[in-house]
Amino acid sequence: MTTELPVSGRAAPATDPAGVRGAVRQVPAYPFTPIDVPHKLDQNENAYDFPADLKRLATERMLARPWNRYPDLHAETLADRIAAFENWDPAGVVLTPGSNVLIKLLTELGGIGQTVLTVSPTFSVYTLEAQMLGATLVQVPLNPDFSLPVEGLRAALRDNPPGVLYITQPHAPTGFVDPEAAVRELVEAAEGWVVVLDEAYHQYSGTDFRDLVQAGTNRLSLRTFSKAWGLAGIRLGYALTSPLLAGHLRKLVPAFNIGTLAEAALEVALEHPGYVRERAQEVRRERERILAALQDHPLWTVLPSQANFYLIRTPDAEAAYRHLLAHGIVVRRQDRLPLLEGCLRVAVGTPAENDALIAAARAFR
Amino acid sequence: MTTELPVSGRAAPATDPAGVRGAVRQVPAYPFTPIDVPHKLDQNENAYDFPADLKRLATERMLARPWNRYPDLHAETLADRIAAFENWDPAGVVLTPGSNVLIKLLTELGGIGQTVLTVSPTFSVYTLEAQMLGATLVQVPLNPDFSLPVEGLRAALRDNPPGVLYITQPHAPTGFVDPEAAVRELVEAAEGWVVVLDEAYHQYSGTDFRDLVQAGTNRLSLRTFSKAWGLAGIRLGYALTSPLLAGHLRKLVPAFNIGTLAEAALEVALEHPGYVRERAQEVRRERERILAALQDHPLWTVLPSQANFYLIRTPDAEAAYRHLLAHGIVVRRQDRLPLLEGCLRVAVGTPAENDALIAAARAFR
Repeated sequence: MTTELPVSGRAAPATDPAGVRGAVRQVPAYPFTPIDVPHKLDQNENAYDFPADLKRLATERMLARPWNRYPDLHAETLADRIAAFENWDPAGVVLTPGSNVLIKLLTELGGIGQTVLTVSPTFSVYTLEAQMLGATLVQVPLNPDFSLPVEGLRAALRDNPPGVLYITQPHAPTGFVDPEAAVRELVEAAEGWVVVLDEAYHQYSGTDFRDLVQAGTNRLSLRTFSKAWGLAGIRLGYALTSPLLAGHLRKLVPAFNIGTLAEAALEVALEHPGYVRERAQEVRRERERILAALQDHPLWTVLPSQANFYLIRTPDAEAAYRHLLAHGIVVRRQDRLPLLEGCLRVAVGTPAENDALIAAARAFR
Repeated sequence: MTTELPVSGRAAPATDPAGVRGAVRQVPAYPFTPIDVPHKLDQNENAYDFPADLKRLATERMLARPWNRYPDLHAETLADRIAAFENWDPAGVVLTPGSNVLIKLLTELGGIGQTVLTVSPTFSVYTLEAQMLGATLVQVPLNPDFSLPVEGLRAALRDNPPGVLYITQPHAPTGFVDPEAAVRELVEAAEGWVVVLDEAYHQYSGTDFRDLVQAGTNRLSLRTFSKAWGLAGIRLGYALTSPLLAGHLRKLVPAFNIGTLAEAALEVALEHPGYVRERAQEVRRERERILAALQDHPLWTVLPSQANFYLIRTPDAEAAYRHLLAHGIVVRRQDRLPLLEGCLRVAVGTPAENDALIAAARAFR
């Protein structure tokens, strides 16, 4: 069953009030189509819900707190706990309801009227916020093997006035992890820039660029509870950065941005983090199992990945997408992106879901 | 007990990375000081918690839903329910976690590189977002009786290129409501501007500018669950506007901005809205009772208000603030704002809290 939502932004531009900025008018509305099928492998979610006993614990805590009072200005209590968990200076931790909000705020911090530098293909939120908020967007194509175009990025750092540089490890949507030396070379070349290391998927790769981030006040690691923690519905992203950069970023965070309910849920998660590692390990095992199971597929190629998703290259993405949908599996098309011709992006699901994916793939002729 | 939070943004500017925009660097960090006293009358909150049986109902609904899945892209289900409650076209309803987030997005929509026009004194979020995001901020002083400076605003509308105009009814921090004709004159003069009618407190005044908003595609009413609904901890603000403006605004709303927990709580509130009117009526009665009880105060003057807060003009705001604090009551100083010399802003509390305020005021010599 497919539900088409109305795309309101497509009304005739002639009637737009002059006060609406051109940069916003020019961006098309996001044509979102939620699809109701048994196996949802299109949003890189955790396949398992937050444990039932922890949900119960969290709701008890919510009941004991007032809902009529504003929460902490910047979720200071929760920030302290995340700082303890990450062994990071609390003054350098900034929280928002989802790391996509932090990307908007980083664009406000260093993008408006300046430069946003990233690769191509990349996470669409970096580029959309840059376009809408009036940054000069510079994208350097990834190398054909999906590795970072170090020389091209270094040239762009030299040729453009500073702003924000995004480096994503593991990269989305490729799942590629670069050698530490390449990342270090880029970060060190980006003096004066706000350097964002987006590590949303780092629990699946086992990588951690915290030392590199800690070595300069202009650097920031972006992390989330939406993936390995299995809490995409609760909305929490955070930055680990210097107190200096955190101080500026916090000015841009709307007051009381993290609600009382989310705060309670996240406290409980941080008190019981054991499940995260177990599940991440299962994802890594399953990812390798799928890769092996489909390596002799006559038409499709599963590409290696270090994240909780992987790309399948097909001769015809439209046909492959529809075939999987007919088998009750929804995935994300990425075939219109540079370097990703014919590609679908698939989340690692439960073992049963991955079996369904393998069986459906094998049934494709 | 007073807790000083670290103000991280005050590090030496010399070490700021060049990529951090000057407009953000120049804004000082917000020096927030949470104060733990029996009577919290400093944030214009609802004095009563969300009803206990409704909290229970809400948490049961939360338990039944997955926390690992992303919520609706733009909280479409909840938007539909708010649209039904407000009798408004769902395509013209936009939700964010707090109406302060909508103010940021409105600044992105029409403020960056353009004009933000408001009065003085006004709600600080309008002016802070304008300053940080690079809008030209134009403020026209209120008339001495706190009414809108219609001629001054009309002149500013003529003299500046379009952007965003904020009109707050009831006004904050004065609690003043203008004659409908004055508001209409301004709104109609603001052709081409994005016109925001901030109605956060409208349940306490009984005013509603929906007809005026509905009469033009460039107009928007800003509303919140933080005041009359008693859900400041849950974080929900919303705009009622045209599908045209909503379509553009929705591009700027981060995906999945309203979490699964908040959604469940707000659904339950919308299914049981009866308590809102009762409580708003109590606030109105209490507000008039306080005004009457203190009208013969030898030194302090309570100013009339149509909101859930009121101003007290004192000969020495610092002394008055400390006196109330010694009586276990925290209020908000507003004495550094134009027109508000010596003024404190006080929220209407429970009858017992208002008794405490009256007694403490009378004890001041």
